[in-house]
Amino acid sequence: MSDKAPWITYRPELKVLDCTIRDGGLINKHQFSDELVRAVYDTCIEAGIDTMEIGYKNSARLFPKEEFGPWRHCDEEDLNRVVGGHDSEKTGLKLSAMADATKSDWKEQLVPASESVLDMIRVAFYAHQVSEATEMIQHAHDLGYETMANLMAVSNITETEIDVVLEKIAPTPASTMVIVDSFGHLYREQVDSLYTKYAKAMAGTGKEIGIHAHNNMQLAFANTLEAIILGSNRADATMMGLGRGAGNCPMEILLGFLRNPKFKLRPVIKLLQEHIAPLRETVAWGPSVPYNITGQLNRHPKAAIEWRESEERDDILTFFDQIQGDR
Amino acid sequence: MSDKAPWITYRPELKVLDCTIRDGGLINKHQFSDELVRAVYDTCIEAGIDTMEIGYKNSARLFPKEEFGPWRHCDEEDLNRVVGGHDSEKTGLKLSAMADATKSDWKEQLVPASESVLDMIRVAFYAHQVSEATEMIQHAHDLGYETMANLMAVSNITETEIDVVLEKIAPTPASTMVIVDSFGHLYREQVDSLYTKYAKAMAGTGKEIGIHAHNNMQLAFANTLEAIILGSNRADATMMGLGRGAGNCPMEILLGFLRNPKFKLRPVIKLLQEHIAPLRETVAWGPSVPYNITGQLNRHPKAAIEWRESEERDDILTFFDQIQGDR
Repeated sequence: MSDKAPWITYRPELKVLDCTIRDGGLINKHQFSDELVRAVYDTCIEAGIDTMEIGYKNSARLFPKEEFGPWRHCDEEDLNRVVGGHDSEKTGLKLSAMADATKSDWKEQLVPASESVLDMIRVAFYAHQVSEATEMIQHAHDLGYETMANLMAVSNITETEIDVVLEKIAPTPASTMVIVDSFGHLYREQVDSLYTKYAKAMAGTGKEIGIHAHNNMQLAFANTLEAIILGSNRADATMMGLGRGAGNCPMEILLGFLRNPKFKLRPVIKLLQEHIAPLRETVAWGPSVPYNITGQLNRHPKAAIEWRESEERDDILTFFDQIQGDR
Repeated sequence: MSDKAPWITYRPELKVLDCTIRDGGLINKHQFSDELVRAVYDTCIEAGIDTMEIGYKNSARLFPKEEFGPWRHCDEEDLNRVVGGHDSEKTGLKLSAMADATKSDWKEQLVPASESVLDMIRVAFYAHQVSEATEMIQHAHDLGYETMANLMAVSNITETEIDVVLEKIAPTPASTMVIVDSFGHLYREQVDSLYTKYAKAMAGTGKEIGIHAHNNMQLAFANTLEAIILGSNRADATMMGLGRGAGNCPMEILLGFLRNPKFKLRPVIKLLQEHIAPLRETVAWGPSVPYNITGQLNRHPKAAIEWRESEERDDILTFFDQIQGDR
């Protein structure tokens, strides 16, 4: 990449992960049709996206199948029905699922990678769950999966806690340590500070640094770019920003910006029109004032999500007053 | 400002300008009710905002009064009807109007500052209009106004052209040279490059550097922050991002982020609820896929505005194909 006008060149190592179904499923209990999931899959291949995260490997005990759709559990039979015969070599697309510490029956749920269409397991965890996370990473690695470590809600823990997590993750076989701004609270200088810390802790391990941003303050794309500028080679995005609350970094903006000619924007625009925009008839997502407020306050967006779902949704002043009084 | 965690401290010199009526008026031909304009004015005072840009001083010859509302011309009688007796000392709020090169009858339209409620004239111009702009700045200054220089569409001209403009503006009495991203095309490293160029050209003149960002790629707030981080002390924003096309940097996000205790967010939220959100019944603004696309292509948003106003508005794929073919 040239130093002079880096915005017209590209870094071949930079890879994009689509987590539309996995993160977007948090707003509809993962009740997506097979057709939609397949359309996202086909689009990822056409668009040159590197990885598609197709759902969670979460426990059916905690997320009963009567209530939650198949992409909350990613049972092999559901995966095979929709993307059976997937070949990451031929398509250029890796398939990933996310397993959460405490929410996944990971010892039972994961089959050997050679028996699955999945190529990667991303392990999501809060700081205090790092010990289970390292076991999960090792287990998934032993089964033949590529792994990533996603420390969630990083804006809400101390620097010392982050340091301990990074120290524990460094020796694991995870390929990537991801900066995850669950609350959509971070801004540029905080991303810089975290990137520096993560990169230092992972130096010499060969690990990449990833970025997973939320859009509460309309900074998801900006923070994703910031991490990329600093050297992050793994970026998450979702189609039309689909995701819980304010949503994620929009894939159409990220791909429209990246200069690697392998990335194609048109298939993404087609998907938005045919499959994603119509979802707005039944579910709501994207930045709005209540999410701005929870993001600014470094709080989980759930209060804003509930407000947006209530009959008071337009009374943003009362929401502001209540959440201020609530601190 | 501390180097260590600058996001919890503040820089007292940083001033915020509200251009809701001026920029927002581009989507409704400045047909705002007196009540709404007064509500924005009262809110600016309550919220601690430093300057309110209440409209354009544009020619009634070019923008006939049968078609365009009073905030396109800012005649003194209209100003006096709504904010008569305005006192910038008592309220802490300066009032500004924008005059465009070639679009303003500035020699006739401007009265001496001592006879006007206006405190400031911002001169907007394209690069090739810099000579008229410098005359306008001098004229407004001689009449007693503070002045700013807004070079528009900076993403679309050469670096040499920018250098010449900056050289011409440097000796004028303008208090501020503003980075204006009319097409919503710039991203972080381009803002950096422009800021450095502007700051270097204005060094020793006492001029501040301002930032006026558009939200085509959801980067208006991020780019505003970026300029602020680098040292910009004059930031533009609008209520709920109201503005042509994808709109502007949203005031509620900017003020919620700034740490100077003089800024109050609650009056802004109240205004949004009572006056700005209801405008969505008649006018549309804010980021969407067609604006993402024109922003990425460094084009004026007018093709996207027209598309959004047409019956084909949801056919974003055809828009994408047409504009690609159009290059």
